[in-house]
Amino acid sequence: MSDLYIHAQKAKEASRILACTSADLKNTALENIAKALVDNRDEIIRANREDLDKAEVSGLAMPLLKRLKFDDTKIKDVTEGIRSLIKLDDPLGKVSLHTTLDDGLELYRVSCPIGVIGVIFESRPDALVQIASLCLKSGNSVFLKGGSEAMNTNAILAKIIYETGVESGLPEGWLHLITSRSDVTEMLGLNDYIDLIIPRGSNEFVQYIMKNTTIAVLGHADGVCHTYIAEDADIDMALKILIDCKTQYVAVCNTTETVLIDRKIKDKILPLLFEAYKERNVEMFGDDELCSEFGLSPVTEWHHEYLDYKVSLKIVDGIDEAISHINRYGSGHTDAIITTDDEKASKFTLSVDSGCCFVNCSTRFSDGFRFGFGAEVGVSTSKLHARGPVGLEGLVSYKYKLMGSGQIVGDYASGKSTFKHIHHKI
Amino acid sequence: MSDLYIHAQKAKEASRILACTSADLKNTALENIAKALVDNRDEIIRANREDLDKAEVSGLAMPLLKRLKFDDTKIKDVTEGIRSLIKLDDPLGKVSLHTTLDDGLELYRVSCPIGVIGVIFESRPDALVQIASLCLKSGNSVFLKGGSEAMNTNAILAKIIYETGVESGLPEGWLHLITSRSDVTEMLGLNDYIDLIIPRGSNEFVQYIMKNTTIAVLGHADGVCHTYIAEDADIDMALKILIDCKTQYVAVCNTTETVLIDRKIKDKILPLLFEAYKERNVEMFGDDELCSEFGLSPVTEWHHEYLDYKVSLKIVDGIDEAISHINRYGSGHTDAIITTDDEKASKFTLSVDSGCCFVNCSTRFSDGFRFGFGAEVGVSTSKLHARGPVGLEGLVSYKYKLMGSGQIVGDYASGKSTFKHIHHKI
Repeated sequence: MSDLYIHAQKAKEASRILACTSADLKNTALENIAKALVDNRDEIIRANREDLDKAEVSGLAMPLLKRLKFDDTKIKDVTEGIRSLIKLDDPLGKVSLHTTLDDGLELYRVSCPIGVIGVIFESRPDALVQIASLCLKSGNSVFLKGGSEAMNTNAILAKIIYETGVESGLPEGWLHLITSRSDVTEMLGLNDYIDLIIPRGSNEFVQYIMKNTTIAVLGHADGVCHTYIAEDADIDMALKILIDCKTQYVAVCNTTETVLIDRKIKDKILPLLFEAYKERNVEMFGDDELCSEFGLSPVTEWHHEYLDYKVSLKIVDGIDEAISHINRYGSGHTDAIITTDDEKASKFTLSVDSGCCFVNCSTRFSDGFRFGFGAEVGVSTSKLHARGPVGLEGLVSYKYKLMGSGQIVGDYASGKSTFKHIHHKI
Repeated sequence: MSDLYIHAQKAKEASRILACTSADLKNTALENIAKALVDNRDEIIRANREDLDKAEVSGLAMPLLKRLKFDDTKIKDVTEGIRSLIKLDDPLGKVSLHTTLDDGLELYRVSCPIGVIGVIFESRPDALVQIASLCLKSGNSVFLKGGSEAMNTNAILAKIIYETGVESGLPEGWLHLITSRSDVTEMLGLNDYIDLIIPRGSNEFVQYIMKNTTIAVLGHADGVCHTYIAEDADIDMALKILIDCKTQYVAVCNTTETVLIDRKIKDKILPLLFEAYKERNVEMFGDDELCSEFGLSPVTEWHHEYLDYKVSLKIVDGIDEAISHINRYGSGHTDAIITTDDEKASKFTLSVDSGCCFVNCSTRFSDGFRFGFGAEVGVSTSKLHARGPVGLEGLVSYKYKLMGSGQIVGDYASGKSTFKHIHHKI
């Protein structure tokens, strides 16, 4: 048995204990962890300095260096994050169904932890703190794998969090930091011990994970978001939104990559849109019609995530073509319609098969914090389990508890007893 | 492109239309289908006669012949099933979260269909009617594959249901019957078109499906259910339940396969249990202790589903050993504790990692109809999406609708606007 296998067994055992751990104990552990991170700032910053030195020598690009840096500001950020997590309702033990099957035979559907969650994340070491605390709050054991650039920082953060957790009363094995790539490969095959994998990183990376495991994966490979301007759109509103959803922050998954323009509003909006995008250095690609009419470069692939100051433009003949285009080329992430017609809005939100269907606002709102979830685990483009921006509820499952007083099925099969099935409002 | 591929594309297109189809239209279609089944009884029974004749010639076993038979009684059963489904609440459009992000910026989480569901079922032709109507009620397109013994019956049933549906206003392509095994293999690879696969059949079959597709699968491979008799159990209650959960109907997944007996109650309960099981011809297998003490045959594998008048017995030293045994050898289906101690009951239901954790009642209650769901899609031992007995809610997903009035993220990033995040009670 490999080391990783033994750690996975321990994590599973720990998860059974976490499932019975009180909200108070978990919150106390979280508070102690926040304090320990502050108390150990020197050691953390020293370890991070080592990572930064190595990264500078190896010529890591400036934006990545910035993400790697873990200083007092970051410590403040993550401890504030932990404290806001402490304030959130405990996601466990919530009853979502209660039916009296018969006298003294009560059925409850109750939220419970998933078990062991494997999280693979990019270079930012603050992600480690955030993920570890989300898993703890939701009663799950966690396997963590961070970027190798942040090796030393991750090691000290994981050590502080794990040990403080155990000192606070959490079970041994509740957190484990994976350090090698071969361990990641092995983890992807541990179906008996890992219940859910959350990959956070580039599209290629997430797609690689999805293709190489039969364990459930929570995440999104890419975000090809659309905004459709219906014929009856308010032009000023449409322009304001088109600028925001494309240029407010280009490097994220909820940025609009394709603008669909209804033919009937084309002449009114295009001159203004071209001007606005040119002013902001947005490179525009078009369909055949726009290329020949306005000399735009042709779009080579409609399912394309630019994550840049680039946008695909297409003229469509009505809402049906817009919906078909989105369902064919989108990624099921976030799509918006700009319209003054309630019927069109309703048709769009019902027919577009995406986790987020927006009306008259920017696709950039698609985000756990903006949605008011208090914490964000990630965005899911899967249609099962969690969809769209995922808060703590994405880290919980449920189980049925049936509390009886000696009932047997034979009595109901024979007709001696009959079910009452009284559904209680929750 | 294969025929199946084209059908899958059509089913996907149809699913977009079904997502916007009113509950009234779906219920009218269901009522018309029920009527059409009665109106076409002669043709159905003639087709079924062909299947039965062939099956008799090929020497199909009597219980399978019985399941294959589709007569007036079965027609009455399935039409009654459809009519009770009509009466159930529409599972779509249900709001499970409503947050005011800001003035005129309202976030809703709303239930919606999953899309296209592929169902592979055993020989009973009534399953075809039941599945088709469940998918219709929940707004999903459906691919069906039944047993080859029921070929003619399935063909006529699918034809009547599909054509009556289309005549009632459902989109073309909403249902498709697959007839060949190679089409099943192809379907397992159609990730872009099939959103969920529900296999209903033997363990081997379900495991084969789970291993051969990356599409989400709803189902359970096996049901190794346990009943644990705690030291403080009421002996009469324990005996009554142990008889029911093992012998009331042995061939189903929610039957108890292993009885765990606390050492402290062993001497009191064993003589009575042995007598009761012997009377009912239940063959008993034991752990080392029981084998040497009472001459039972040894259990060869603890993770074993007998589906027969056979049971595994084990003496455990307290609740912790019982929980460990269940989590190690169980299948996450249904497990019960018999106890008079509320603390033990609570520990058991929190720590046992199964979809159904029962206290003082028979594991046989684990069933959608007994749970009062009105319809049962199947039982899931997965921890994501649907878990335990699954009603119509297992056939729906959700999406977020954000209804705005021109809001852009830039205004919130700059501080010009701030989120209100008013969470409304549902």
